[in-house]
Amino acid sequence: MENDLLLRVARGEVAERKPVWLMRQAGRILPQYRKLSEQVGNFITMVKTPEIACEVTLQPVDELGVDAAIIFSDILVIPEAMGLPYEMEKNKGPVFPKVITSAADIDQLRIADESGVGYTIEAIKLVKRELHQKIPLIGFAGAPWTIFAYMVEGSGSKTFTHAKSMLYAQPQLAHRLLHKITQSTIHYLKAQIQAGADLVQIFDTWAGILSPQQYRQFALPYISQICAAMGQTPVTVFAKGAVFALQDIARIPCNVVGLDWTIDRRYARQVTGNKVALQGNLDPCVLFADKTVIEKETKQMLAEFGPIGHIVNLGHGVYPDTPLDGVKCFIDTVKSYQPELPPLTT
Amino acid sequence: MENDLLLRVARGEVAERKPVWLMRQAGRILPQYRKLSEQVGNFITMVKTPEIACEVTLQPVDELGVDAAIIFSDILVIPEAMGLPYEMEKNKGPVFPKVITSAADIDQLRIADESGVGYTIEAIKLVKRELHQKIPLIGFAGAPWTIFAYMVEGSGSKTFTHAKSMLYAQPQLAHRLLHKITQSTIHYLKAQIQAGADLVQIFDTWAGILSPQQYRQFALPYISQICAAMGQTPVTVFAKGAVFALQDIARIPCNVVGLDWTIDRRYARQVTGNKVALQGNLDPCVLFADKTVIEKETKQMLAEFGPIGHIVNLGHGVYPDTPLDGVKCFIDTVKSYQPELPPLTT
Repeated sequence: MENDLLLRVARGEVAERKPVWLMRQAGRILPQYRKLSEQVGNFITMVKTPEIACEVTLQPVDELGVDAAIIFSDILVIPEAMGLPYEMEKNKGPVFPKVITSAADIDQLRIADESGVGYTIEAIKLVKRELHQKIPLIGFAGAPWTIFAYMVEGSGSKTFTHAKSMLYAQPQLAHRLLHKITQSTIHYLKAQIQAGADLVQIFDTWAGILSPQQYRQFALPYISQICAAMGQTPVTVFAKGAVFALQDIARIPCNVVGLDWTIDRRYARQVTGNKVALQGNLDPCVLFADKTVIEKETKQMLAEFGPIGHIVNLGHGVYPDTPLDGVKCFIDTVKSYQPELPPLTT
Repeated sequence: MENDLLLRVARGEVAERKPVWLMRQAGRILPQYRKLSEQVGNFITMVKTPEIACEVTLQPVDELGVDAAIIFSDILVIPEAMGLPYEMEKNKGPVFPKVITSAADIDQLRIADESGVGYTIEAIKLVKRELHQKIPLIGFAGAPWTIFAYMVEGSGSKTFTHAKSMLYAQPQLAHRLLHKITQSTIHYLKAQIQAGADLVQIFDTWAGILSPQQYRQFALPYISQICAAMGQTPVTVFAKGAVFALQDIARIPCNVVGLDWTIDRRYARQVTGNKVALQGNLDPCVLFADKTVIEKETKQMLAEFGPIGHIVNLGHGVYPDTPLDGVKCFIDTVKSYQPELPPLTT
């Protein structure tokens, strides 16, 4: 591969500079995405059409000069493939017409195999062909707890009362659903790897609303199972808002731990040791400031993470209304930064 | 005072049992509140009418048997008193027709004195009369960063891009506004104490969206100034989502640190030492479960915090749709729990 910085850092190898990419880089920050999105008119259609997903995945590669592509898809393709379809409502986000409330509901769900998410697998194959081994392609899935939260709650929520209540009131039922989601996710990620994904990332978007105890009980064991099933392919775990679980996450068989911007960098390095590479974590709001501020904040982040084991990213998906110049300034600052390499031991 | 458990624990004294109250206990969980709210039809009118605010404050006292009352008001009375009024929009929450974007906007703001929030001060006097020294009355205000966030953003937000961008792009401007808010808040809280508030709590609702560095720079110093100005009255600081700042918060001159439910209790005790009492932190979703679960989770929390220096509360304001039986079960469990007292040193 022409540029395998991401994979080398993920595997704990020293690289000549830090790799950089952005969560949600294939999306509304790009004018070419917004144009295509207007033409198609429906987010789920874009996800389900391999040619469109491929085009969107590739849009940021040359435009931004990132060190990795990430397949354009959605974490909610898994519930859909399990038999629980969703819709995307304007100004509200994903909504499930039917939700999971009982053992019977869970019994009716399929354990998804790759056929249920064939459109994303096909898109990965197309992207790999177009990339010509220039940079790695990242595959992804939602973490079981986050998928569970949507399937029980039926939509995004500030509180996720229904989903969390099931954990307290019916823990055995919750485990049954989490198990089924986990099996489906393992099939899905393995198919992504088979199709060409070079690294996979697990997004635990709603990690931060669980208590540490619940996270250890209902979230971490399932992520760990997924990581263990990925073979030699590196895995990144990004559990948003779960600073409390950082140490535990670093102990499961993953290679990279994603950090949101509220996590102190030195603390993160300290509690994760040298077991994993760290990914993140610039505050996405920095990119709304002028170049001087972006350069200063980016360089400070680069220094605080130290010279090795760092994949540069924001601490969250880039916000859709971020000025494109700010995004480019961030990436250019990372790519032109000269890290201080550790002294050679002779 | 008949029952001063809250004040004794806040001051670091040993008490015969742990005091318990709920954030948002005066609110929509109570049928009598919902009835009154329907009659009045407007939240801000309720806040601004001392007789109504008094009635609402007292509603949970007998109904729930809590160990403290908290004055019914709103953190956004401060922007209003400074010259930036707000409205409450259904399904959206507070909205400011005008927001702060420039130095000129800041210059036009008043430093509020107690006359701007006379309705809440009057309500406190009424409540104190009605309480007959039965239990303490808690006063409160928003923390300067949280108030700033609303004044610059104009409403609640997932990302607070405008408010946070000002911190990055115009830090001096941000400090000017934060200073003015802090001065206003000190006047306001002193007037609350003068009128009879026995303890004051500072709510930093949006603490958790700042990076640790920004929190130390733009949030903590102002909270510290407020705490230092409160004289002998105990102060509670509740910075939601700011687990990263726990150690720093315990070092400012406050008496109690509020914890949200995502914070590991033993970790919190460890990093705050014996400098402060801790308040919290049951997950509000527990109260949706059946009695067995509520009792189990509550007892576990009581044990994990240890026998002293603990004011019992939820880790967030009680959710409006919480079953009243669940709330009562929680309070009764706390009040009937027998803590293991530390051995007397002879």
